[in-house]
Amino acid sequence: MDKLPERIRIKDIARLAEVSVGTVDRVLHGRPGVSKNSRERVEKILKELDYHPNMYASALASNKKYNFVCMLPLHSTRSYWHDIEQGARKAELSYSDFHISVEMLHYDPYDFSSFESVGKKALDMNPDGVMFSPTMSRTTLVFTKELEERKIPYVFVDSQVKEASPLAFFGQQAMQSGYFAGRMLMLLAHEKEAVVVFRHSRGGQMGSNQQHEREIGFRYYMNEHHKTCKIWELDVDVRQNQEETIQLLDDFFTSHPEVKLGITFNSQVHVFGEYLEYRNKSKAFNLLGYDLLDRNVNCLRKGTVTFLIAQQPFFQGYNGIQTLCKSLILRKEVKQVNYMPIDLLSAENLDYYLDSQESE
Amino acid sequence: MDKLPERIRIKDIARLAEVSVGTVDRVLHGRPGVSKNSRERVEKILKELDYHPNMYASALASNKKYNFVCMLPLHSTRSYWHDIEQGARKAELSYSDFHISVEMLHYDPYDFSSFESVGKKALDMNPDGVMFSPTMSRTTLVFTKELEERKIPYVFVDSQVKEASPLAFFGQQAMQSGYFAGRMLMLLAHEKEAVVVFRHSRGGQMGSNQQHEREIGFRYYMNEHHKTCKIWELDVDVRQNQEETIQLLDDFFTSHPEVKLGITFNSQVHVFGEYLEYRNKSKAFNLLGYDLLDRNVNCLRKGTVTFLIAQQPFFQGYNGIQTLCKSLILRKEVKQVNYMPIDLLSAENLDYYLDSQESE
Repeated sequence: MDKLPERIRIKDIARLAEVSVGTVDRVLHGRPGVSKNSRERVEKILKELDYHPNMYASALASNKKYNFVCMLPLHSTRSYWHDIEQGARKAELSYSDFHISVEMLHYDPYDFSSFESVGKKALDMNPDGVMFSPTMSRTTLVFTKELEERKIPYVFVDSQVKEASPLAFFGQQAMQSGYFAGRMLMLLAHEKEAVVVFRHSRGGQMGSNQQHEREIGFRYYMNEHHKTCKIWELDVDVRQNQEETIQLLDDFFTSHPEVKLGITFNSQVHVFGEYLEYRNKSKAFNLLGYDLLDRNVNCLRKGTVTFLIAQQPFFQGYNGIQTLCKSLILRKEVKQVNYMPIDLLSAENLDYYLDSQESE
Repeated sequence: MDKLPERIRIKDIARLAEVSVGTVDRVLHGRPGVSKNSRERVEKILKELDYHPNMYASALASNKKYNFVCMLPLHSTRSYWHDIEQGARKAELSYSDFHISVEMLHYDPYDFSSFESVGKKALDMNPDGVMFSPTMSRTTLVFTKELEERKIPYVFVDSQVKEASPLAFFGQQAMQSGYFAGRMLMLLAHEKEAVVVFRHSRGGQMGSNQQHEREIGFRYYMNEHHKTCKIWELDVDVRQNQEETIQLLDDFFTSHPEVKLGITFNSQVHVFGEYLEYRNKSKAFNLLGYDLLDRNVNCLRKGTVTFLIAQQPFFQGYNGIQTLCKSLILRKEVKQVNYMPIDLLSAENLDYYLDSQESE
């Protein structure tokens, strides 16, 4: 790349295009009130000069405030959703010079009406942009239709809903992630192996559609490469207490002592890792799960979980808010579909991954 | 986080601290000419108000140009170093509003005097900052001493030299990376396995110290967990032609038919993957290597290489230049040691990783 040219001024462009300075300004910032002929003349000159307006300067001069809303499932401090929230907070700070604010709203991920009422609250705030996770595809489409009617841009994190038209999506390709999980799990298998899929739900209702799609991908892999491997399923209801869960697992392993591999497609693998430690079973058992919750990370370090697959929640949140800023404030083009990497973590490469998720 | 307060003006700070506006400005931008007493008064008020100056506005107003130099080994278009260069170019574009330019200089990684003369050229340009890879620790320290005397900040990418004091370092912890590589390779092993380490050098001189440290980490893992596993070494000179390399490998595999696992610690694993394909040996052999060169990626897709470990070269380059901008232009604090993640890629998770390396 050559060195930058000396600074081109708007009045130079106006003179060359034979229009007013105000017209150039309107074209540069995509505002209406310019004739087709003038617009074309200005655009021709901009192209010839290879001129890119200084959007930082424009944004800083405008003094407009941008209010964004971020809607996420209710969560505890150290969770996958917490990391997304932290990323959004970091982006809010990084772009604070542009007068942005991010309002956080939370809903119950197992309750449709909770999502609806939080969505209504978000709309009442008349935000400039919304970032949320469409964990419930059915209610999401009602909400996105309303956003589209009001011309409020929105960004999906974690998962997407095909029928919607977000400004951008940041999340993993869930089926491929499950397919990869199958590959990695089976590296840990001995001959004649059986696998148990541990599931979490509330009365059969799963907390996210990602879980479901990962399992489809996993079964696709197993069908292609380990057709004869027996796959058991074990459903754990999130409302069970610890004793009930232990009893359920004891019963399962008593009936199926041959099962030495387990997998979960949500972030609750620590429930099973901690059980293996409690029953002193972890040496003979390999477990793969998702997401770097503190309790999962502890299991990985202790060896009760062998692999975790991570999906950069911090960057999902950071990039989501950044995309709203880039598009709305800096008026840059943004990429719509952004699949996050499918990251494999073991005790050996964990620390450097955790480090990289804290910086930006 | 609460909403941002209404804008605080510099003259409000001056009034509260009972100093002039010029004094506040000098404190904010770290310029000299302020008495200890005034500085403390201003800093106290800044802290009370939780005031952060708008560094974007300051930088844009200053009109200063920043010239950075980036020094990398000579490389082909699709290589690890090329990706670092692309990252640096992207950062140059992202920060172009702040009038930065990045001059690229290249040296021969197997020749000390080439690095020296390119370093001299860089100094002659009197840059505001330098980013480079200290592939040669011996000559690096002469160069960094000169930079430090001239008060030119510098950033390391890829590897670091302990005795130097860079503004920041972006790269992998090489020994841990080799340790992790050992773990992953041995998942592919059957019982009574032997491993061959393929090396690249020019007359015994390796092109980077990362290679050497990864091998130390790998041997550490093997010694801890697979003490009886035989490890062979095979040195390939980069000046050999293809026929000579094939002959060398044929000879090796004729003498050691029991070896079914191979590993490389540089980015040249494709040399061996392509050999396995040529000799139709890849089904019975597992190979692990580093970096996503096109030829390596092709081997991964074809199954002639089982795993690649990647280290985000694009982001090393991007973050390196970004750090110079953040520190010198936006006067933000930067983190000195930034280990890149140790990323494991297989045919199954490759595509989403490649996607994420192209965006920023």
